[in-house]
Order: sequence, then C-alpha cells, then structure tokens
Amino acid sequence: MKTPATFYHAGCPVCVEAESQIADALDPDRYEVELVDLGAQKDRIAAAEAAGVKSVPALVINGAPFHINFGAPMSALKS
Amino acid sequence: MKTPATFYHAGCPVCVEAESQIADALDPDRYEVELVDLGAQKDRIAAAEAAGVKSVPALVINGAPFHINFGAPMSALKS
Repeated sequence: MKTPATFYHAGCPVCVEAESQIADALDPDRYEVELVDLGAQKDRIAAAEAAGVKSVPALVINGAPFHINFGAPMSALKS
Repeated sequence: MKTPATFYHAGCPVCVEAESQIADALDPDRYEVELVDLGAQKDRIAAAEAAGVKSVPALVINGAPFHINFGAPMSALKS
C-alpha cells in the first residue's frame, strides 16, 4: 500500500514546471503521487482545504500539508 | 550519479520532524539527500544563500531552492 501524496497547484506554467520537481522526486515505490490543478479542478478545493492546504502550491503527504513557496528564477521568466 | 538534494532547517524539533518527511520521501535511487541544521552548522549558511535559500526550512534540489512552510499541527504541539 503506497502512501498518498497530492501536489496542489494553480496552473502557473513556470511554477508548475519548477515545483513539480518535488512531486517528481518522491520515491515512486513508496508514494502514489497525484497532481491537482485547483484552478481547473475546483471540485477538489474542499478536500484540499480539509487537508489543511492554505495556499498553493502545496504538497499533502499522507494527510499532512506542506506549503511550498518557490521564487521563480529570473532565467525561467526570460525563456 | 545521483542528484544532490539538501534539506536546510534550523533545528526546531517539531519542524524537523514534520518537514524531514519531504526529504525522506525523495527517491533514494535518484537523489543523494543531505540534512543540514544551519543553526548548528553556520559554516554552511554561505552555500545555502548562494543556492538561493532565503528562509528555512528549504529544500535545494539540483541547485534549485524550494522554500517549505509547514504549519505545525496543533496535535504536534501537544505531544
């Protein structure tokens, strides 16, 4: 039985690319990772809030919320 | 060759326990994870800042900084 891990974001292309690195880095043998775009999947907002998500992007691992703030590098904005 | 991943923190017991979940969740086949307590290892602060770390806890994956803010659950404060 793998541990559920949900990565919530809001569709910002730069942020999704950068932050999904963390979701992608999780051990696939131990975690079942799901990516949820709350901007597109508004029916998932209630569950995210119930898990303690206050802002996006956030990673919920086994029910515990981690809020991730990534300062997009200037180089990403130029490409 | 594994990708380097460094988890920087500042020694808060509740935060270390909670946030190291993310470092522990990384795929050990692909990432070489190091935990650094900047409160105790002040000689590592310059390198953390050079990697773009603005606050702790933060996870630097392959040179890219991710700042993690975890709101400690009330249950953790009671134990």
